[in-house]
Amino acid sequence: MFRPEIKVLDCTVRDGGLINNWQFSDDFVRRVFSVLIKAGVDYMEIGYKTSEQYFSRDDNGKWKFCSDEELKAIVGDIDCSVKLSAMADIGRIDHDDIAPASQSPLDMIRVACYAKQVDKAIDLAHYCQDKGYETTINLMAISKVIERDLDEVLSDLSKSDVPIIYLVDSFGSLYSEQIQSFAKKYIDALPGKTIGIHTHNNQQLAFANTVEAIICGVNMLDATIYGMGRGAGNCPLELLLAFLKNPKFNIKPVIEIIQELFIPLKSKIEWGYHIPYMITGILNEHPRNGMKIMEAEKLPDLGKFYDELLAPEPLD
Amino acid sequence: MFRPEIKVLDCTVRDGGLINNWQFSDDFVRRVFSVLIKAGVDYMEIGYKTSEQYFSRDDNGKWKFCSDEELKAIVGDIDCSVKLSAMADIGRIDHDDIAPASQSPLDMIRVACYAKQVDKAIDLAHYCQDKGYETTINLMAISKVIERDLDEVLSDLSKSDVPIIYLVDSFGSLYSEQIQSFAKKYIDALPGKTIGIHTHNNQQLAFANTVEAIICGVNMLDATIYGMGRGAGNCPLELLLAFLKNPKFNIKPVIEIIQELFIPLKSKIEWGYHIPYMITGILNEHPRNGMKIMEAEKLPDLGKFYDELLAPEPLD
Repeated sequence: MFRPEIKVLDCTVRDGGLINNWQFSDDFVRRVFSVLIKAGVDYMEIGYKTSEQYFSRDDNGKWKFCSDEELKAIVGDIDCSVKLSAMADIGRIDHDDIAPASQSPLDMIRVACYAKQVDKAIDLAHYCQDKGYETTINLMAISKVIERDLDEVLSDLSKSDVPIIYLVDSFGSLYSEQIQSFAKKYIDALPGKTIGIHTHNNQQLAFANTVEAIICGVNMLDATIYGMGRGAGNCPLELLLAFLKNPKFNIKPVIEIIQELFIPLKSKIEWGYHIPYMITGILNEHPRNGMKIMEAEKLPDLGKFYDELLAPEPLD
Repeated sequence: MFRPEIKVLDCTVRDGGLINNWQFSDDFVRRVFSVLIKAGVDYMEIGYKTSEQYFSRDDNGKWKFCSDEELKAIVGDIDCSVKLSAMADIGRIDHDDIAPASQSPLDMIRVACYAKQVDKAIDLAHYCQDKGYETTINLMAISKVIERDLDEVLSDLSKSDVPIIYLVDSFGSLYSEQIQSFAKKYIDALPGKTIGIHTHNNQQLAFANTVEAIICGVNMLDATIYGMGRGAGNCPLELLLAFLKNPKFNIKPVIEIIQELFIPLKSKIEWGYHIPYMITGILNEHPRNGMKIMEAEKLPDLGKFYDELLAPEPLD
């Protein structure tokens, strides 16, 4: 598939950091950055833009905060093809934490929100745009949003100035036909905007659903090296680049960094397809219960875990 | 997805045996058999039907041979909902090795062949049908067959009495649009026949491509428990059963046996998504070079492996 409009965003450090509280060394992040340049990737999401009043530096590495000074120390003044992005969660960042884009190594701020927070997200994204950043809104957990509410959210987004809106399969629960249906809905409801896709791999569908979205006209694609990301992880960058025929992409540096850094890393911290994540995925539930189970010394009875998640709440 | 015509065939022991030379204990295979009954699976492929003159018992477990006597010792005379199948490769079995179905625990023999062997495959399948077996022909490695040859093969198959023809993605190289295109071609060329699908997971597309095939009208679905199978493995049975809405299917016993037997097994023998298999998949090559690499004490340079597989043969 070659379509000149397609852009790839690598969020290895941002989404992968959800596993290890962003405890990546400077050298590791520099290596990822340098590989993404060689691979022809368009954006690198290097972490979260978070206020230090909400999270502690003791518990979280610097990629949880993405201060402009620390980013400068990593990427320097390199003039390169990769643009830098950070994600901002509603309620975890204040306007004052965001300096003008001209003073920051960041090119883009992506605002993540739930459907109920969309007005706050639009407000924050507009603020960032006024400061000179590119912006997106990443609407999470849409597999739990009823259609009437989603239509209203999309209508609000269509009236905003935010140019890129993401379809996010937070729980890794969506099948290709649902991706098709959402992609069509987003494209119809958001004329003139670019649609993005961010998937999780609970059902081994992260890459397949990204391809499905591409076929439907989605042009902004999230991926991570070796699929590293929370829980079951994300769409593997190496698979996505092999699928995309745009000659600017180059898979070989990604293969090399996987061998050098990510295969060893995966033997220390856990992500990928595991039955607890598969169970939360097929039941359309947040992976947190699966993650709790995976952290236990010994896996509890998974048949029972399935039954418990499946059972409806008592009615009285 | 619920369609009454859909049948699921588990080939864990047959395809998984390609990793460990079918060194499964009787108890392991009995446990798989019993779980498949509880899970509502339609067929269990318990191994290969192979002549002992071509392969040694010293190197291969009994599931490489599937003698009727040994099968009886495992499944006894249980009258159950799961039918038993064995695969036969062209050139590795003689007609004399196949007793009448009435004397065998096997219900089905699936004949695997390359496009060039299709006439021999039809001949063997007809022979098995005459002996009272259900039959299929599994046409392997179609991603390497040029269209004119494939059309001729399908035309031959359409004239045969073999009722089920499989679309096999031997190298795990096919994308959803290619699966669609092959499924449509098979369905159009083989009126009145059932189409089956057998996938490999080199690009994490085994499950997604099986779903794609279902959407296109394919009704006979191969899967293996926890995706166990040669190289990158196959479509995971647990994901497939969760997708299928037919109430006869039950995922819980599959989750339980994965926890009890397959998670421990996977720490001893290797299958699943690995970069060497990913590379053979994206380059549409047989996984054998990837398997050789995975068996090495230390992974060789994977960037170089990619370059070598990608480079065309010297022209002189």
